[in-house]
Amino acid sequence: SVNPDLGGERQTASFSVEKLTALLDGGVEQTQIRRAVVEAIESDPVFSRENQYFQTQNERYEAAVRKAVHLQKKMHEMGWTENGPEYKYIYRALSGDVAFLLHRVFMRSISVLGSDRQIAKWIPLATQHKLIGSYAQTELGHGTYLQGLETTAVFDTATQEFILNTPKISAMKWWPGDMGRSATHTVVFAQLYIHGKCYGIHPFIVQIRSLQDHSLCPGITAGDIGPKMNFEHIDNGYLLLKNVRVPRENMLSKFCEVRPDGTYVRQGSQQINYFTMTTVRISLISDEVLIPLKKACTIAIRYSVVRRQSKLKPGEQEAKILDYQTQQEKLLPQLAAAYAFHFTNDYLQELFDRGYREIQRKNFDMLPELHALSSGFKAMITQHCTAGVEICLRACGGHGYSLLSGLPSLYTKILASCIYEGENTILLLQTARFLIKCFMAASAGQPVPPSVTYLAAVKHGKCPAKNKLDFLSPDIYTEAYQHVAVRLTSSTAAKLQDLIQSGVKKHDAWNQCTVQLVQAAKAHCHYIAVKNFAETVEKLETKAGIQKIMKHLCDLFALHGIFSNTGAFLHDGYTSAAQMDMVTAAYLDLLAVIRKDAVPLVDAFDFTDQSLNSALGSYDGQVYQRLYEWAQKSPTNQMSPAYERYLKPLLHNTLSKL
Amino acid sequence: SVNPDLGGERQTASFSVEKLTALLDGGVEQTQIRRAVVEAIESDPVFSRENQYFQTQNERYEAAVRKAVHLQKKMHEMGWTENGPEYKYIYRALSGDVAFLLHRVFMRSISVLGSDRQIAKWIPLATQHKLIGSYAQTELGHGTYLQGLETTAVFDTATQEFILNTPKISAMKWWPGDMGRSATHTVVFAQLYIHGKCYGIHPFIVQIRSLQDHSLCPGITAGDIGPKMNFEHIDNGYLLLKNVRVPRENMLSKFCEVRPDGTYVRQGSQQINYFTMTTVRISLISDEVLIPLKKACTIAIRYSVVRRQSKLKPGEQEAKILDYQTQQEKLLPQLAAAYAFHFTNDYLQELFDRGYREIQRKNFDMLPELHALSSGFKAMITQHCTAGVEICLRACGGHGYSLLSGLPSLYTKILASCIYEGENTILLLQTARFLIKCFMAASAGQPVPPSVTYLAAVKHGKCPAKNKLDFLSPDIYTEAYQHVAVRLTSSTAAKLQDLIQSGVKKHDAWNQCTVQLVQAAKAHCHYIAVKNFAETVEKLETKAGIQKIMKHLCDLFALHGIFSNTGAFLHDGYTSAAQMDMVTAAYLDLLAVIRKDAVPLVDAFDFTDQSLNSALGSYDGQVYQRLYEWAQKSPTNQMSPAYERYLKPLLHNTLSKL
Repeated sequence: SVNPDLGGERQTASFSVEKLTALLDGGVEQTQIRRAVVEAIESDPVFSRENQYFQTQNERYEAAVRKAVHLQKKMHEMGWTENGPEYKYIYRALSGDVAFLLHRVFMRSISVLGSDRQIAKWIPLATQHKLIGSYAQTELGHGTYLQGLETTAVFDTATQEFILNTPKISAMKWWPGDMGRSATHTVVFAQLYIHGKCYGIHPFIVQIRSLQDHSLCPGITAGDIGPKMNFEHIDNGYLLLKNVRVPRENMLSKFCEVRPDGTYVRQGSQQINYFTMTTVRISLISDEVLIPLKKACTIAIRYSVVRRQSKLKPGEQEAKILDYQTQQEKLLPQLAAAYAFHFTNDYLQELFDRGYREIQRKNFDMLPELHALSSGFKAMITQHCTAGVEICLRACGGHGYSLLSGLPSLYTKILASCIYEGENTILLLQTARFLIKCFMAASAGQPVPPSVTYLAAVKHGKCPAKNKLDFLSPDIYTEAYQHVAVRLTSSTAAKLQDLIQSGVKKHDAWNQCTVQLVQAAKAHCHYIAVKNFAETVEKLETKAGIQKIMKHLCDLFALHGIFSNTGAFLHDGYTSAAQMDMVTAAYLDLLAVIRKDAVPLVDAFDFTDQSLNSALGSYDGQVYQRLYEWAQKSPTNQMSPAYERYLKPLLHNTLSKL
Repeated sequence: SVNPDLGGERQTASFSVEKLTALLDGGVEQTQIRRAVVEAIESDPVFSRENQYFQTQNERYEAAVRKAVHLQKKMHEMGWTENGPEYKYIYRALSGDVAFLLHRVFMRSISVLGSDRQIAKWIPLATQHKLIGSYAQTELGHGTYLQGLETTAVFDTATQEFILNTPKISAMKWWPGDMGRSATHTVVFAQLYIHGKCYGIHPFIVQIRSLQDHSLCPGITAGDIGPKMNFEHIDNGYLLLKNVRVPRENMLSKFCEVRPDGTYVRQGSQQINYFTMTTVRISLISDEVLIPLKKACTIAIRYSVVRRQSKLKPGEQEAKILDYQTQQEKLLPQLAAAYAFHFTNDYLQELFDRGYREIQRKNFDMLPELHALSSGFKAMITQHCTAGVEICLRACGGHGYSLLSGLPSLYTKILASCIYEGENTILLLQTARFLIKCFMAASAGQPVPPSVTYLAAVKHGKCPAKNKLDFLSPDIYTEAYQHVAVRLTSSTAAKLQDLIQSGVKKHDAWNQCTVQLVQAAKAHCHYIAVKNFAETVEKLETKAGIQKIMKHLCDLFALHGIFSNTGAFLHDGYTSAAQMDMVTAAYLDLLAVIRKDAVPLVDAFDFTDQSLNSALGSYDGQVYQRLYEWAQKSPTNQMSPAYERYLKPLLHNTLSKL
């Protein structure tokens, strides 16, 4: 039975939830395929996540390995293949709670960086799981700056082998997933030395554990790096190499080869490596970043119409907390962001597919733009979504703090996305470097990529809005965002030039501008996200109320961004104080409008209770019953030795009943 | 041996670290007492926290009980008493990792709310630990809004007992610490009914577990609420009451009494209850909020001078990450905030002490101001410090995400402070209510409490700064903060009146202004924090370089607040865009200045390695060695059954060595 406080919210939906779900999935057929995958996974008890919040790190790891192994069987049983339409839904259906994700990265790196012969040897072995692969790049002392990696691989012409070593503790491989306990093989990135000369970082396939008994191979020290904020199910590992020899054939050699005599030959383009990073950054947005925010919104919004607290009107029943303006102001902008970034992700995917086609035709022109956009948006979206999940958690008060709400684990997991695959500040600075370059080029009348042509068209006008309703016009707010992005880029470019002209060295000048460069990169991404949302809304069918509610969300996303960052818009007078008051009024009005559809809008994400794994977010809204029943199963309700050991002696037993 | 990258930072300190430590402690004698307590606690292996990050919730609980029991012995041994000068340092030395904290709340509530007879009966029993107390207020469905609590206590004149019941699931007590597994007694807050009439919420002492064998008493259902984001060492519990009878004498009756015939007598002032909440809110700031931020700053800043990544200048060694402007911009404002709020806390303590003296003289005039300030600052400081700890965590990249950095547990613990003892949004709205009331009174020429007299003196001038150095003048920035606080309060008061005059009902109008009311309350607290920091700096002795460095931090705290919230200062033109550019320039300049003293500034917090419990933050900066050694001890490096069970069958054993 559905909690009537929640049920009532669904009866007044202004649009068709089912149609919105299909829109998000990319069509009715996709929804059907997704649901079939979810059904098959969730009905299989091996994939249960019921005990997850009670498990130790060891138990989580063991369950993840068990699931990974069972998944092979399941896929065979269901007829799912890696190239089939179901594949992309499996990970989502498992909520990522499975081992051997790095095995796929191992395979991808061989496919991309390996020679045809290497691919022919290793990929079938990996596909049949005759080995378990990992990917060993990051070191204890080195992350972002790959050139700084310290692991060495010295070529020995006498034996035709590479000798791999960890010369000091900071060179130890640290963090690679699946490496702590599972992997038998890994791709090690090391500085290549031939005849005493360093040729930079290259990838080597190294066996680290015996295929007979899983013991560590000679010269290998490896283990698990211990507890983390989340990812208990993954055995992130460390690896020390001491004179580990691998044959010459184990250096991945699509682009670089070492001949038997030690001659080093570079061939093909290195640019493709950037494209691999771009792929990973774009692909993580959907599964690792958007889904946690969508889940957090679902949990927090459903809870906020079930939870009643304090009185809005004297003499009445306690009010649903979502009826408080402050609660709306916490949650609804996160909901709008979830939709906004969903469409940003579509935009990036499309751009990426186009880029991929061009690259296949040996045209690398789109690479810089793709790199800048994927870097900037990876940083911007992970940052916004992480903050959003945290807001959802806090907005649920004490119950949000219980692991049983599901929110803490969503938060601690999404937080990592701000760090992995490129630390966000570094990524934003890469985007900024692209912006500055393009701005200079555009100023000099040279052509620039499509996403930054706007930098050339600097307008010095004022925002034309006359009343608060004008701020519901996408042209008005999109232009305001554009104006800010141009202003921040151009003013930082000017500061940079001024510093250099005044004699500051180029790298110092750059460093002195980085805080503002980060702001410019964020403004650029925010502008594109707003513009893309507005364009998406325009193209939606006008039926079924979907365009209307999406328009509201787009407006909210845009106005929330202005409301939260008024200084950027007020700074040069583009927006006046009076107009800013209109923005505030329009923004607060929108909260009350969207609040009415808040529950249908999260229902459209179509998460099952199992995938939410939350006592607060279930479809039926029976929050208190669920919390109570679940808590009773906690291992903390088993008999504790603390009483006999410590409490009994303390309490003296002098009193029977006070 | 100290890592030379860290050691070098200490040689160039512009001030005496030891003198700054003494200033923070409140005198050299206090530093001595504190260090003696720390030494005694840390040299005792029972209090070790070494395995904390590896322990399960059950293990954490058991260790905390063990420590609590051992602490009694230790105090006796050391001659420490609850009224002695050492007492306040014990909790800090234990990093709060100890059980029975609610036992003290149990005792305090009896002392404050109990009659002399009740105090005489219960306090000695509690002091001698002949019972373990708890405090059962919050319910599954009710937190902030106390009037909404649903537990009932019906007076039975026939037996002279109260009959306590949990009428429905949402009325179950939920969250009380020490109640899940330890407590034998608790103070239950319940709606009092006499002859069918409800008299509101009253406190009752209820025994919940046998003193013989610790089994639950008749009619009691109780247990642990399960896993949380932190506080694994505390057995937060649930409690269901079914016709539980307690004698008439168990209702705490300093202010209200039920006579044998059922006559209800109220006596004394209820206002004192607010004062209790005020006490708790102020007392938690120091231990639960400031210390985690100070620890996080210590860890992140020490790590940032040891970690080298990428090159600042081409051809040079990789740079310390603290030399990057973006890293300074993350960490140094948090350091400045830690100092700012340290002095805010001193200010609140002093105000509180003054208030307490007045109350003892039966003068309750200061209560509203104290309530408003303690509520607003509890919210503001917990929010800032929580965000600050998160920034420190993220600023350490992947290693910050490891539990061994110490940062995740600091974050997950401080986060709770935003929720407990009054949810922050609710608290800010209480402050805002006080502000609006005082603003109206001041506008009508009536007297208002000292902290808000500035609301009466609305100035419509402009910021007089002419260049960036002017923004290093406390008068300039303090006045800017004051201006913003007045503007936000007055404009929201105007909006509220407009709405009411246009026919909107009072409670609806209030709700429609709450987003802006929260902004006004924050601006008020921020203004007072800046003003107080500036006044504190002024009073410091000019010797030993301390005043100079504190002045820099005060400037940074103030300018960071403006830089992060430019819109509020630009809005009505009080600050011009040109002036805002000066703020930015002055702010960025300050980062480079304070960076030089960053390590000495965190050294002055004087945390031992044991209390930091961090692989990144140790005094000697041997980060990588410590991470490696510690990780090896993780239970995840014990033999796992996963290989035999799942991996071996998967790997087929068809290959011996590839």
